[in-house]
Amino acid sequence: MLQEQWGKRIAYLGPEASFTYLATKGLFAESWLVPYTTIPECIEAVADGKVDLAVVPVENALEGSVPLTVDYLFHEADLFVTAELLSKIQQHLMVHKNQAACWKDIKAIYSHPHALAQCHKYLFYQFAGVPLNQYSSTAAAAKLVSESPDECIAAIGNSSAAAKYGLEIVEKNIHDFHFNHTRFFVLSKENGRVTKGGASSGPKTTFMLTLPTDGSGALHQVLSVFAWRKLNLSKIESRPLKTGLGDYFFIIDVLADEEEPMMKGAVEELGALGCSVKSLGTYYTYNTPE
Amino acid sequence: MLQEQWGKRIAYLGPEASFTYLATKGLFAESWLVPYTTIPECIEAVADGKVDLAVVPVENALEGSVPLTVDYLFHEADLFVTAELLSKIQQHLMVHKNQAACWKDIKAIYSHPHALAQCHKYLFYQFAGVPLNQYSSTAAAAKLVSESPDECIAAIGNSSAAAKYGLEIVEKNIHDFHFNHTRFFVLSKENGRVTKGGASSGPKTTFMLTLPTDGSGALHQVLSVFAWRKLNLSKIESRPLKTGLGDYFFIIDVLADEEEPMMKGAVEELGALGCSVKSLGTYYTYNTPE
Repeated sequence: MLQEQWGKRIAYLGPEASFTYLATKGLFAESWLVPYTTIPECIEAVADGKVDLAVVPVENALEGSVPLTVDYLFHEADLFVTAELLSKIQQHLMVHKNQAACWKDIKAIYSHPHALAQCHKYLFYQFAGVPLNQYSSTAAAAKLVSESPDECIAAIGNSSAAAKYGLEIVEKNIHDFHFNHTRFFVLSKENGRVTKGGASSGPKTTFMLTLPTDGSGALHQVLSVFAWRKLNLSKIESRPLKTGLGDYFFIIDVLADEEEPMMKGAVEELGALGCSVKSLGTYYTYNTPE
Repeated sequence: MLQEQWGKRIAYLGPEASFTYLATKGLFAESWLVPYTTIPECIEAVADGKVDLAVVPVENALEGSVPLTVDYLFHEADLFVTAELLSKIQQHLMVHKNQAACWKDIKAIYSHPHALAQCHKYLFYQFAGVPLNQYSSTAAAAKLVSESPDECIAAIGNSSAAAKYGLEIVEKNIHDFHFNHTRFFVLSKENGRVTKGGASSGPKTTFMLTLPTDGSGALHQVLSVFAWRKLNLSKIESRPLKTGLGDYFFIIDVLADEEEPMMKGAVEELGALGCSVKSLGTYYTYNTPE
């Protein structure tokens, strides 16, 4: 049973009805979930032992990585990824029921910056000139709209936020691109993996590494370690080390189990090359049911 | 003369007193500058011929790339980089002069999301629980505070914003990390380079490329093209192709001139490997005077 293995307190990036909530609810019982307001608060909650696991967004198919998550895991926390959750992201335009008749005259639109960016073209063509206000989450924006019945304002968010806050969806699927998914990490203090029927893929291992030099061939050498072993990288990304412009660390996702001999050999060689390697562990991917 | 070569209309990410304004003013006469509200508007202005050049932020040493700039240049525009500007970023806490005595009881803080993130620790320790409100730019946040003399609110921004809007700086250099710089691109419809005395480095060439397959060795093969020629990469970054999670394009900065024989050979081989390569051109870097 998952609760025996992992405990029953799961932090997630709230509020309730956020995309993270929907993803978390796909894997864990609703009664275990504890909302936190920010990504660092979620991560600190599990690092401090206030909760057993924490679920935070790590990458969106359109907007790319969530820098706060990636940077916090590298610079501030020593945690492991125990599972990856994959959710389809559908953005809808929603207003208070009192305003449903005049929604085309919206005076302001509220949502998370990623959601606003994901609907950039729609907003540009349909609501040019209408102020776009950034909010901490799509659900928080929906809550604000629900509390302002007399204002002709709209939120952009998921159907669960509309349901929870009693808003009316006036335009569905306003995101610019199809194939929009978000990846979430399930974080723990212990290096283990959530194992449950229905994993859609895996195993996958995430490494964070810094190169010994920034010479021309350093990254090439690192990739050679994986390439000759035919270890497939599903992702490589650079992020600032925060020591100066041009200094980066790399996040590398490898489609293999870190316990495999080839992976052990690769990590050993990376060390021998002078790389500093931090493994976030091996994990499986679970799709959020629609 | 720069104006004969490039014209006299320079769009920049405004408003006046933004960090982009400070960087642009370092290279071009102040009377040529035209503020635009958003990064896409700056880019569209030069693409449509409304201005001769456009200056937009592309990367911060702490926060990483500015996704909107990078993605817009890849997906939406066909422009070239004619110069790179490098500015030191110093963030200060500022309030209306009427509120200078009670600034420790600030009720809300306004700034650009990057500036708020750059002062994350300071804000966490000094102003835990105070709402942080995201604004389109640090200067816009300063303007808001200047227009609210009776509210105990603060903005985070540069000294020029404080001067322009008559705000009092109550705490200097509140950013968490030193060595904080931002890179700006000077964009043009034509592939050329701004040449002026005092370039701090260069030449540098930026490529945007997509790989032929996502097989394990594809990126390794691409880097081999540069590595055996000892062409030094100052940066490699992946960004979503927006066709599905796991599909990326790569931005590669090479410390060489695209007219060099080794670079021509590299580009030719990248094509032969099946990569699609878009060159943003070769350019020099100019430091903004402090």
